[in-house]
Order: sequence, then structure tokens, then C-alpha cells
Amino acid sequence: MSLGHVVFVGAGPGAADLITLRGARALAQADVVLFDALTDPALRELAPQARWLDVGKRGCNSTGQARINALLVAMASRHAQVVRLKGGDPSLFGRLEEELLALAEAGTTCEIVPGVTAALAAAADTRRPLTRRGRGRSVAFTTAMTREGSLHADPKPADSEVYYMAGRQLAVLGRRLRAAGWAADTPVCVVSRAGWPDSLASSHPLAGLAEAALLHSGRPTVVTVGEAAREVAVAAPAAPAASAVRALQPVQAEAPAAAL
Amino acid sequence: MSLGHVVFVGAGPGAADLITLRGARALAQADVVLFDALTDPALRELAPQARWLDVGKRGCNSTGQARINALLVAMASRHAQVVRLKGGDPSLFGRLEEELLALAEAGTTCEIVPGVTAALAAAADTRRPLTRRGRGRSVAFTTAMTREGSLHADPKPADSEVYYMAGRQLAVLGRRLRAAGWAADTPVCVVSRAGWPDSLASSHPLAGLAEAALLHSGRPTVVTVGEAAREVAVAAPAAPAASAVRALQPVQAEAPAAAL
Repeated sequence: MSLGHVVFVGAGPGAADLITLRGARALAQADVVLFDALTDPALRELAPQARWLDVGKRGCNSTGQARINALLVAMASRHAQVVRLKGGDPSLFGRLEEELLALAEAGTTCEIVPGVTAALAAAADTRRPLTRRGRGRSVAFTTAMTREGSLHADPKPADSEVYYMAGRQLAVLGRRLRAAGWAADTPVCVVSRAGWPDSLASSHPLAGLAEAALLHSGRPTVVTVGEAAREVAVAAPAAPAASAVRALQPVQAEAPAAAL
Repeated sequence: MSLGHVVFVGAGPGAADLITLRGARALAQADVVLFDALTDPALRELAPQARWLDVGKRGCNSTGQARINALLVAMASRHAQVVRLKGGDPSLFGRLEEELLALAEAGTTCEIVPGVTAALAAAADTRRPLTRRGRGRSVAFTTAMTREGSLHADPKPADSEVYYMAGRQLAVLGRRLRAAGWAADTPVCVVSRAGWPDSLASSHPLAGLAEAALLHSGRPTVVTVGEAAREVAVAAPAAPAASAVRALQPVQAEAPAAAL
């Protein structure tokens, strides 16, 4: 039987100050914090009293997830408040379901504090709203990778679509999206390290998406496709340049929005 | 020409403690705050030094939006830091595009601090992750209302879909979703005042969605349809009960997650 309570906290996608006040309070009351590789080390200052356990999920497989589940249950049996800190928001692409199930099986109570997800930080950094009047009424968040590790592209599920975890396969994603029916000149905006002071953004027509790979290499990346990728311009928005090289020119100008 | 700088801040969907640390800091440095009707009055404690202007957009029309745009520009011409506080996240359903355009035309600089959007708070309150392993790879956020005020439902754009601003038309939304191809027994979760201590949730099969109208009447509501609406259960998830009355029984048990 469990003594403690688990609080899932969304750390936000980037720098420590994108956590919520509620999340910060949960950290301040934590005995133990289980965290992932991508969360900002500065978050430790919000819980100096706690024991911090790195359960980094980069390259995670089901064995890794089972180990995390067991650790969560074990920690809750010994401590009053366990915080499970997750990058972004816990309910989106965070394998929250598996951890909730493990706690339910063990009879451990829990609570979830939502967080800012990467797509919202990318929209903020680039000043490109995810919904637009008239033209952009819906936006889908999706992962390009299926459970089996293959890449999947949807046939226009919404006015705009944001792909998570697609950074390593931008060229393939571009081809699959075109095969799924998106036009070659569909605007695409790629943002890496959204929400950090060194966030980088680049604009491309869909046909030139492969050109973004080098710029964002090795950085957590979200890819926005469709209306939401267009720059908000005073003049009527033009279609992105056909050449990816030209399209990459505005990168330096628009990049460090968070550092302004 | 503008003296000041505008910071758009996502207040989060509910109680004041769902704002980010970055957003709270922007408020602490604000000279003026322009806020909407739905933001928590307790947020004022984060900027007691500022002048707070209610530009509440309930029932907003284009005249109202033009007035807000003009006020933003006017305030930025007289003050160093103007905060435009928006419920949820500024980039989602917030008419951010119009305000960005007005500032660009006036030559006023701005920055955007993202926030927690209502769909994420609803998922947290009900402990129902928006993405699920294998079955729920994508989620679309959409508004049921078109620009002209008519209601629109999509033909299965993603594994799950979250409808914003549909509280007054739940019966119509249910019929439109069925007409668009969603099965009568598709699980639906309705959450009102997500992120507040008095948040309320109810579960329904799609065919019984109309039954939710009375319970959530007059409260800001998000409607989650599809895989993400299923309860995370230790046993294999059952289809929601055919009778909406029975389906409503778990409401009291699952409602005040934020108050735990």
C-alpha cells in the first residue's frame, strides 16, 4: 500500500521559467523528483530539498518504461510527495497512460499539473498563431513516428499540423506529406529548442523541407505545416520562396525571439 | 512611433497558478495590463503596480477587436511595458493574428509568452492523456464555430479531437459529429472550467452528448472526442454506456481533480 502521492508536472518545453506556478509549488513540496533528460537543470533550484532521479527517456524502450513505472510506485511507497517531471505537457506524447496505469494498479493516488507544450512555445517564438481567422480554424498535434518506428503522414487532418519528434527525418516527412496530398508550396516552419533563449526557426515551402535538417541537427524540433506556418505580415502573405536556400535567409532575423 | 513593448501572456485556462513563471515576471514588470473577462481576478496580485484594463471579449465582434487593437497601440505609445493577458495560450483561438498585425502596422515590438491551453488542463483534471500508445497518435484542437457563426464538424481528422467554445451547442455538435462519420458509441468527455478547483467532467457516448448540456450550462467548456476521452483503466477499457444517464454517474467522483 502506498504512503505517498504522485504529482505529474509539465515542465514546459524549454527554459525553467516556462513551468507554471502550480508546478513550481509542487516541486517546492517534493521529497523526490523523477525527471527526464530534456528538462532544464535550472529547475533543480525549485526543489533543492528533494532527491532528483534522472530517468532520462532518450532512446527509451519498453524495458525503460517498466523501470520508470516500478520506480514511481516504489518511491510513492516511501515518500509523501513524489513529483514526476515531464518535458512539455504530461498529457501529450509523454507516455502518461503507462505511468497512470502502474499507479492505479498499485493503489497510488495522483494529480496532474498541465504544462506548456512545444507547439505553443514554437508559435510564440516565431509569432505565428496556430489558429487564424477564417483560414486556420483547427490544428492537429501529431507524432510522425508510429509505435513500430515507421513514419506516417496524414492526409490533411486539419488546417495546420504540428509534428513532434520529426527532427531526424525531415526529408522523409516532407516526401510523405506531399504523397499524402499536401501541396509542394505549403508553408512549413521548423523550430528547434522552442522556448529556450537559443531557439531557432526556419521557413520553407514543403518541397524544400529537407534543407532544414542541417540547421536543426541534434536539437529537439517541432515542424508546423499549413496555415499556422505563415508569417503574420502587414501585406497579404506571399507563398514561401520556391528555393529553400532563399527561404532559409530569414532564419537569423527571426530566430532568437525569446532572447529579445 | 512607439515607446513601449507589448508582451502577450498566456494566463492559462483557469486558476491564477496555471500561469508560467515567465508570464508572472512579465506581469510584475507591467505598467498596463489589458485583460479578458475570463481570466482569474487573483492574477491582479501578480501586478499590483499596473493599471488593469478590462477589454473583455465575451460576445466580441469586429468593432470590439478594432477597439482592442487601437488601445494596445495607444498604450504602447505611452508606457514601457504593456501586457496583453489572454486566457489559455495566446496562439490558440485568441485572435492573436489581428493584434500582431495592428502592432506591426504601428511599428510596436512585441514578445509572446505561451500558456497552458484548456485542452491540456481538461486532460490533466480528468487524468485522460490526449495521446495514447498505439491507439491515439494525434489530437486536433478546433473550434466548432465558423466565422459566420455556424457549426462545423470534421470527418475524423485525428485519433482524437478537442472542440473549444462548443458549450452552448452540445446537442448540435453531437449530431454533426455523427453525420461526419464518428460512431454513435465514440467516447466523449466534456470538461467545464478546466484548471479551476470547481472543474466538472462528464463522460458520454457520442449519441448521448446532448445530456451534458444542463450540467455544464454557462461554464467555459471543452469537448474531447475519440481515444483521448477514454478513462485510463486497469482493465481493458469498455465502451461508454449506451445510456447517457448512467454515463453521467461518474461525474461527481472524477470532477474536482484540481482540488485534491
